[in-house]
Amino acid sequence: MSLSYRDAGVDRDAAAIAKLRMRELVDSTRTDAVRAGFGSFGGHLALAEGEELVASVDGVGTKLEVAVRAGRHDTVGEDLVNHCVNDILAEGAVPLAFLDYFACGKLDPEVVVEVVRGVARGCRRNGCALLGGETAEMPGFYRGGVYDLVGFIVGRLEFPAVAAREVRGGDVLIGLESSGIHTNGFSFARAVIFGRMGLEVGDPWPGLPASVGEVLLRVHRSYLGPLREECAAGRVRALAHITGGGIPGKMSAILPEHLGADFQRGSWTVPRIFDIIQHEGDVSTEEMYEVFNMGLGMVAVCPEDNVSPFQEQVPDAQIVGRIIPREGDAHVTFSGG
Amino acid sequence: MSLSYRDAGVDRDAAAIAKLRMRELVDSTRTDAVRAGFGSFGGHLALAEGEELVASVDGVGTKLEVAVRAGRHDTVGEDLVNHCVNDILAEGAVPLAFLDYFACGKLDPEVVVEVVRGVARGCRRNGCALLGGETAEMPGFYRGGVYDLVGFIVGRLEFPAVAAREVRGGDVLIGLESSGIHTNGFSFARAVIFGRMGLEVGDPWPGLPASVGEVLLRVHRSYLGPLREECAAGRVRALAHITGGGIPGKMSAILPEHLGADFQRGSWTVPRIFDIIQHEGDVSTEEMYEVFNMGLGMVAVCPEDNVSPFQEQVPDAQIVGRIIPREGDAHVTFSGG
Repeated sequence: MSLSYRDAGVDRDAAAIAKLRMRELVDSTRTDAVRAGFGSFGGHLALAEGEELVASVDGVGTKLEVAVRAGRHDTVGEDLVNHCVNDILAEGAVPLAFLDYFACGKLDPEVVVEVVRGVARGCRRNGCALLGGETAEMPGFYRGGVYDLVGFIVGRLEFPAVAAREVRGGDVLIGLESSGIHTNGFSFARAVIFGRMGLEVGDPWPGLPASVGEVLLRVHRSYLGPLREECAAGRVRALAHITGGGIPGKMSAILPEHLGADFQRGSWTVPRIFDIIQHEGDVSTEEMYEVFNMGLGMVAVCPEDNVSPFQEQVPDAQIVGRIIPREGDAHVTFSGG
Repeated sequence: MSLSYRDAGVDRDAAAIAKLRMRELVDSTRTDAVRAGFGSFGGHLALAEGEELVASVDGVGTKLEVAVRAGRHDTVGEDLVNHCVNDILAEGAVPLAFLDYFACGKLDPEVVVEVVRGVARGCRRNGCALLGGETAEMPGFYRGGVYDLVGFIVGRLEFPAVAAREVRGGDVLIGLESSGIHTNGFSFARAVIFGRMGLEVGDPWPGLPASVGEVLLRVHRSYLGPLREECAAGRVRALAHITGGGIPGKMSAILPEHLGADFQRGSWTVPRIFDIIQHEGDVSTEEMYEVFNMGLGMVAVCPEDNVSPFQEQVPDAQIVGRIIPREGDAHVTFSGG
């Protein structure tokens, strides 16, 4: 029996309906300082002196449940910081400050401190100050042992060209490897791995010298290190951080109406974890690509001339496709393979 | 039998232990841009051009459960915005942008949209842009029907004197009325009102032409409107937003070591809701003052000469006490009454 995201308890249609209806509410609050629309990777705010800030919010999602199962709480904070850092990088911004929110049903100081240890490590590695935080104990809200972790980031716009997204036909798509599932699609992955496959976090992962917990908790990569210089050198026209919605969803968000992105299947290695989830869950390839990053955590759009210097500087940068004139409904197509 | 906050499921000691241990983690992330320490109402971030930002994060807490019981979701968002606005106002800042995070077990678009309607109303009323948001569906995390709502605010430092808190002996404490419980102490209030008293949200509130739900959901007041001009005119030396920890906890946060705040009991009216909770829960007066705002949502510290013009401009501004030399351990004392 084929598993869908809805079977795993996540209703993407409901989220899309809510998002549409929220748009006018958001528009009603617009002030002169707001610089960009709704729905990109972060919001832009212009300050008086020509300085522009970018802010974004995200949660870790149900990867947290894996941390709880594994009793390993010091990595999810770094996941969260890196996720937020990548989001504002895709808006041309470099992080200034991060704030976290931790909520649970019954507060265990050991757990909170381990969680914040990961947040602080992520902040240090990205040169970002942990400026504040809130810890909430909410009896009756959270099921036994689980907690939620939310992050807010503020950065400074340093690469306006990346924010402008002046993508052109013929531009090259450069993919950067993900470290695994990162932080999206975990409700789906859990349904397959813990549900259908009946694995536990301590079990060995099929074919790897690592446990299921270790593989699932691999930290979401930050792309600020590898991409900062490329952005500063003007070699990047746009960035898509591949999270919820996958390559099709996130590439659509950065493309103009008349252009498409054609990805060459086989030009990058899809990590085996995705093959296992697809096979064991009997999931369609289309759905896999809409839920998971499939091995690419960030896609950069570059003019052809910039590809060689880019690849010299960033070892894992791979050519994975090209910008083409859009034909038909789909913004994103997959060829070959 | 006397009810304590711990009986109501909230362990303030655990939170305090976690906070202490987080301090060094937070310090490890410090960058040159960070301007203030840990533990105030918001964090300060200096930008290159001499501009300073203040950011803060907060959740609505278990007031959300009352909204769920009452099926009324369009007010808690305004509570959250106002709470955050007051926090950064106590740091001398005026709001620029707000971001929200909504998480639940099963997404109901109607509920999300109502919640965001309240957030947007709060943003409009405070002149703050709703710059972004995240909606998370996390199966298995939240107990049936409840959700969490978190807000993040960024403002601009406009009143550096308020942030500096140069409080002096003889300064006057001016209290501004709260609209009720605001957003703190709800786990406690729920334990008494729904637990001990056995009331339902639709029941009439004892002695008032309003239901229990209406009284409990009264919106947390924003003090930006009444206080903005007072701060701009330089009439305010410091502000304490009275939330978790109550008057003793929040006044301690703004006072120097050698000064105390002496509040005159009977100088303001404690709303009847607090009398009822105290009586029905058999709670000590000390604990009541550490959990609830007891009728004062914001306390301003002003030089004596500024009190008359302040009171002319702000109708509900009441003299509630005075800054005195500190004697003994307590930063905050209550006299008379």
